[in-house]
Amino acid sequence: MFRYLSAAALAAAMVLPTLAQAEEPTDPNVNARHALMQLYAYNLGVLGGMAQARMDYDPELATEAATAIYHVSMAHADRMWPEGTEVGATADSRALPAIWENRAEFDAAAQALTASAESAMGSVGTDLASLQAALGGIGQNCSACHRTFRQPE
Amino acid sequence: MFRYLSAAALAAAMVLPTLAQAEEPTDPNVNARHALMQLYAYNLGVLGGMAQARMDYDPELATEAATAIYHVSMAHADRMWPEGTEVGATADSRALPAIWENRAEFDAAAQALTASAESAMGSVGTDLASLQAALGGIGQNCSACHRTFRQPE
Repeated sequence: MFRYLSAAALAAAMVLPTLAQAEEPTDPNVNARHALMQLYAYNLGVLGGMAQARMDYDPELATEAATAIYHVSMAHADRMWPEGTEVGATADSRALPAIWENRAEFDAAAQALTASAESAMGSVGTDLASLQAALGGIGQNCSACHRTFRQPE
Repeated sequence: MFRYLSAAALAAAMVLPTLAQAEEPTDPNVNARHALMQLYAYNLGVLGGMAQARMDYDPELATEAATAIYHVSMAHADRMWPEGTEVGATADSRALPAIWENRAEFDAAAQALTASAESAMGSVGTDLASLQAALGGIGQNCSACHRTFRQPE
């Protein structure tokens, strides 16, 4: 059952191996998309912490975190995923070839995240149940995209 | 003279030592603010490349980059700079104690960046001269904040 989502597990899975050692320098586009994912995880950690009662519910902080997720999604750029940056082709990448084989679906997944974050901005400050529902929506978009387009660790 | 700014130098100075090795793990808040700076640099690189004719002027791409800078600035959060994360107190930090000694000025500097990026969103697509002027405005805000609140390398 996918209820209010294992946000902690999600956030943990999204946190990037920023200290990983690479033989070759990481492509700036790959670094940029990792920075994007890191900011998603940072803010999802707040929502997840509240959803799972590891943190007190704070409507203002929840709204700030959801708003940040929305703005981070608006900084998502096509050029962060150029051809030749799939797993194995460049350092520090777990991007699956499916991204370039089905770019329209990949782009739609990014837009779905923006939509769920925009909706969450307006609802997570209402009460804890609203936060849990909104986080479920965001989390489903994260998971759906990762399942299809990112290689498991 | 501060004309259309040495954006390349600026971007280079902003790029973070993501592969730096730390004895202790970096604080998640410090990682998050570094990710923010990395996304600024990534997009400033586009504007700087065009301003200095290392890239063709592309109004659509310029607008995308300025828009991303605006949205990244909107993901800036107070909690990314908690007490105890100044240079020397935590791994990978060059944040000066001035941030906590004069928080109002620090916050105002962040807001000034948002304002200049919001203005740039609407102007960088007009022509190259407009892009250079807008980049100068953003760059002055970057530099002013770094001069006061970040330790030189």
